[in-house]
Parts: sequence; structure tokens; C-alpha cells
Amino acid sequence: MTIPTDPETGEFHRAPNRFTDRITADGRDGWPVEPGRYRLVVSRACPWASRGLIVRRLLGLEQVLSVAVADPIQDEKSWRFTLDPGGIDPVLGIGYLYEAYEKADPDYTGGISVPAIVDIPSGKLVTNDYPQITLDLATEWTAYQRDGAPELYPEPLRGEIDEINAQVYADVNAAVYEAGFATKQAAYEDAYDRLFARLDALSERLATQRYLVGDTITEADIRLFTTLVRFDAVYHGHFKCNRTKLTEMPVLWAYARDLFQTPGFGDTVDFDHIKRHYYQVHEQINPTRIVPKGPDLSVWATPHGRERLGGRPFGDGTPPPPPPAQETLPPQW
Amino acid sequence: MTIPTDPETGEFHRAPNRFTDRITADGRDGWPVEPGRYRLVVSRACPWASRGLIVRRLLGLEQVLSVAVADPIQDEKSWRFTLDPGGIDPVLGIGYLYEAYEKADPDYTGGISVPAIVDIPSGKLVTNDYPQITLDLATEWTAYQRDGAPELYPEPLRGEIDEINAQVYADVNAAVYEAGFATKQAAYEDAYDRLFARLDALSERLATQRYLVGDTITEADIRLFTTLVRFDAVYHGHFKCNRTKLTEMPVLWAYARDLFQTPGFGDTVDFDHIKRHYYQVHEQINPTRIVPKGPDLSVWATPHGRERLGGRPFGDGTPPPPPPAQETLPPQW
Repeated sequence: MTIPTDPETGEFHRAPNRFTDRITADGRDGWPVEPGRYRLVVSRACPWASRGLIVRRLLGLEQVLSVAVADPIQDEKSWRFTLDPGGIDPVLGIGYLYEAYEKADPDYTGGISVPAIVDIPSGKLVTNDYPQITLDLATEWTAYQRDGAPELYPEPLRGEIDEINAQVYADVNAAVYEAGFATKQAAYEDAYDRLFARLDALSERLATQRYLVGDTITEADIRLFTTLVRFDAVYHGHFKCNRTKLTEMPVLWAYARDLFQTPGFGDTVDFDHIKRHYYQVHEQINPTRIVPKGPDLSVWATPHGRERLGGRPFGDGTPPPPPPAQETLPPQW
Repeated sequence: MTIPTDPETGEFHRAPNRFTDRITADGRDGWPVEPGRYRLVVSRACPWASRGLIVRRLLGLEQVLSVAVADPIQDEKSWRFTLDPGGIDPVLGIGYLYEAYEKADPDYTGGISVPAIVDIPSGKLVTNDYPQITLDLATEWTAYQRDGAPELYPEPLRGEIDEINAQVYADVNAAVYEAGFATKQAAYEDAYDRLFARLDALSERLATQRYLVGDTITEADIRLFTTLVRFDAVYHGHFKCNRTKLTEMPVLWAYARDLFQTPGFGDTVDFDHIKRHYYQVHEQINPTRIVPKGPDLSVWATPHGRERLGGRPFGDGTPPPPPPAQETLPPQW
């Protein structure tokens, strides 16, 4: 995998998403919400894709939006379905995600990313626009959400959620990559400083409230969680985000465990996929491709004590039932 | 710097030392103990060399055995004196340590390592035999040790010290390198497992006694300390020794702080040299040469509470006075 960095500054910048059509209730982009029509392609290693896995679980969309899980190790043709029998996704009938990109745009030469939603009948990629995908699952797919589905992007809180999301994107979600992929010291240190300053600010915010916005779980929590859950397993060492481990930041650590232990969060997390992906794919920063044995992950199951802060995890809704059998992960430690 | 690993097993094995002459009170190898005659060449980055720095301080040998500190970043010709004016060691008059190796053996083509002791009059390397160097400072240089110098290798405890040293060498001092330089997963995991099993056993031993052998500081403590003091700064991330940080192993962490805060230990430690050396020299495992900003090192100054275990750090002796002005290091955090 090639990691593009600026040769002058040594900075890594995430490429914009090319496919930004939206799947909506009214189908205004030509892609109406329809049960069974689309397939969500993810890697369980990828924090951007994992947002979609969590939202789909929380909203109970498993039966209407199926999922394809790519091998955590990309090859030179990127994400592939080598975990499936014969190396072919049984629903899309393709071996590589790029084939859906090509069907959507035969001239496309950009990157292949997850999450991606593919239109099953045509085999075409509809969108790889990860920040929009989860918002649309929350707001456009309401007709097919389970009874008791929470409101993850409630109208009155959207301004505040958007603001937190922008901060968390710049200084947490993206900053860990900018630290890890930097090729010059100054670029690395800039990302590191922004990351830990933001984590400190978030710790302060979360010291007295159970969730980031309002008193229920929202999209903002999901976006922060997917970075935090990878922190000690990969970002601390592999990306040199090593001021402190997550376990050494008491408020964030309790917050992250609280979410991890909430149905729909921890049951989507595959630490084996996460660790193998980062350490084996980024040969530019880990040429030996050795995957560290540590850290001890069982600490994710320890009591978090955040109930004392109150909060209503699912608002007026309810927790989701366990995942479908075929999506149940093996024990993680 | 080339790191030699076995292409079959992916294992790293430390090369044996070639120059094993001893400097002794009776001069039986042709090198009698003599004040001002020899120069100890070290890198403050290197754990093997740092043993010598600590022993020299504890025994008060600063005035009789001068020290040359190499640049923490070797180039293709290895250790060099680029920290000195003009890039030349002012006493030996050489720019590279290899010149002293060549004077001792013009046909030598092996590795250049520190610690090294050079005979100043002839410019010849006498020894790079690091396990013997510190033992000889303790037992052969007694005539020139300071008043109140401790006994670091007391006769009645030598059997026990040797036994502990052998375990610590195999499973701690060398194992961190074997983990970090491994090029195959099994070789890495073997070293990792041995390392943490041994650290757990040492934690148990040190839970009820202040020092490793007897009730005073000995050579055994010095050898364990030089690996522990580097643990969180480099081995945890760079060498993937990441089951736990040292700060997460309460007994060893208190033990290491106790030693760090003892005159002669912490005052020899240059974390800047340590971090830059490991992260910038081993391009095979850190191609970007980025040096992590973390972790917070000020925790080394926190109270350790080990006094409650008793022990007599210097036995019937006394702590050393502060280091000579020219060897005083800048604040470390």
C-alpha cells in the first residue's frame, strides 16, 4: 500500500471521496432506500468503515442492508474478499472491491476505500462517502429501522454534533494517521500535539457528562469511539501516538469502555483484523510486518462506572439484540 | 546500520565480543590498572555502555578513567565523535571509534561496539567485552575507587549475582533486541514471551526485597536497570515489547525509579540520546526516522516508596557526590 505524503512537508492528507451519491428515502440521486438492494462493504480493521457497522447494529438494519467483510490485509489491488469461499463475495460475485468502483466509473483511477455501498442489481458502487453514509442510515433509513432504534442524529442537536464531529475528525480520527504517516518530524509533532490537546479537552468535557452531546449516544460518540478502540492496540505504538495510552487517560478510558460494553459497539470490534491490518499493510512504517502480541485486551471488559453520570444510552429507545449468528465474532481475548 | 538476522528463523543474535583482554591490577594481559591511562568510550544511548557509566560513577572512577561520549547516531562507519569540537575526541585524537579498533588489529572487519576501553598512549582498543568491563572496574580498580565506594560484586554473592545476570541477559537485556529485530513472527513472539515471563518473575522477587541480590545495590541491579530505564521510551513501542509499559508493572516501576533516583544512576541517563539513537539508527524497523514525542518522562521523579523494604543501597559505603561539571546532563524533561 502506498501512503501519499507531501515531499516538502512530510504531511499525510486523506484523499477526498469521489463517489458522493446519497441513498435517500426520496431517491433524489437515483438511489432510493430499499431493503435488500444494497450491500455495505467494510473492513473491520478500518475505523471509517466501523462507524457504519456500529450504526447498522444500533439501528437494527442488519436484515435490510447486508454486509461484506473484506480481508484486513489489502493486496496491490486493495480490498478483497479472500475471507469468503473461493475469494468471492457471495452476494456481489466479485473478488475485489475495485470491481464495483470500475462498474460505477470505468475511468476511475483513484483509491479504493471502505466503507462502500454497492447497488446489488447493477454491481455498481453508489457511495464511499463515509461521513454521509452513517448520517443517512440514521435519517433516511428510518422506515426500516428496528423498533426501539435510537435517534443518532437528533434534529435539535445537529449543530452541536457537527461541531464536535469536525473537531474530532481533524484532531483525532485523522490526526492519528497524520502522526503515523508523517515523514518529517515537524509534521508528526503537529499532529501529535493536536491529538493530545484534543483528547485532553474531550476528557474534560466527558468528566461530567456520559456522552459527547446531549444525554444519549449520538453519531458524535460513534466517531470518537472507533479511534479510541484502536488506540492502544495500534495507534499508540504503530502511529507513535505515545504520550499516554488510552488506559492512562481515566475519563476517556472509562468512556470508551462504557461504549464498548454497550450492545452494538464492542460486538463489532475485531482486534485481530485491526492489528493485522495496520501492522501488516503499512510496510512503510513497519517493514518487518511483525504484529505485536500486546497489549492485554481483556481490560476492555472491566467495569467503567460511568452509570453514575446518568444519561440514557438509547434515549427513548432500547439496546439492540445480539448480532445475527453469521456476524458474531469469536472471543476477542 | 545493518541488523543481522537469520534468514531462516528471523532471529537476531548478538555478535560475540572480539577484544577480550582485561585491565587488571596485576596487568597479566599486558594492561595494568593505571590512573589516566585509559579512556572509556560510550554512547549514552547504549544500555551495554551505560552499565560502565553507572559503575564508574558509583565507584568514583571519574578522575582516573576518563570518558568519551559518542554521537547517539552512528553513520556507516559506526560510532563517531561528532559531539566534540571538530568531530575529534580531544583525548584520543580520532573521529571514529573504529580507528582504535584498527590500531589494535589492522585486519579487523567485525562490528564496532561500545563500551570500549582504549589505551590512550597507543590509541589501541583494549577491550569491548562489556560484561567483563564492569566487573573489572568493581574488582580490579579497587586501589583507585573513592572512599565509600560500594561493593558491587561482593565475593560471597557472586554465584547468585552471576545466576541472575545470566537470566537477565538472556530474557531481558538481549530479549528486547531479539523482539525488536526479529523478522519473523515466531522469533518475535518467543522473545516477547521470555521477556515478560522473566519480568513477572523479577517482579515477584523484588516485591519483598529492595535489590536483586542481598540487601545492597550490586552489578545485578545495574544490568537490569539499563534495560528498564529504556523500556517505555523505546522498547515498548520501537521493539514492540508492548504487553505492558514499565509504568504498568508496579513493582518493577518502583524498583526502577528507586535506582533512577539514586546518585550514579539517573544522572547518567540521557533520554534524548536514547530516543534519537534507537528511532533514527534502526531504519529497518523505523524507516521514517521519526522520534516519538512521548511518553512523559517526568514520572521518573515521582516517589517510589521502596525505602519501606529496608536495604542499604551502598552497604557500608556512601552515595557518590554529583557528577563532575563537564559530565552533568541537561534537565531530562
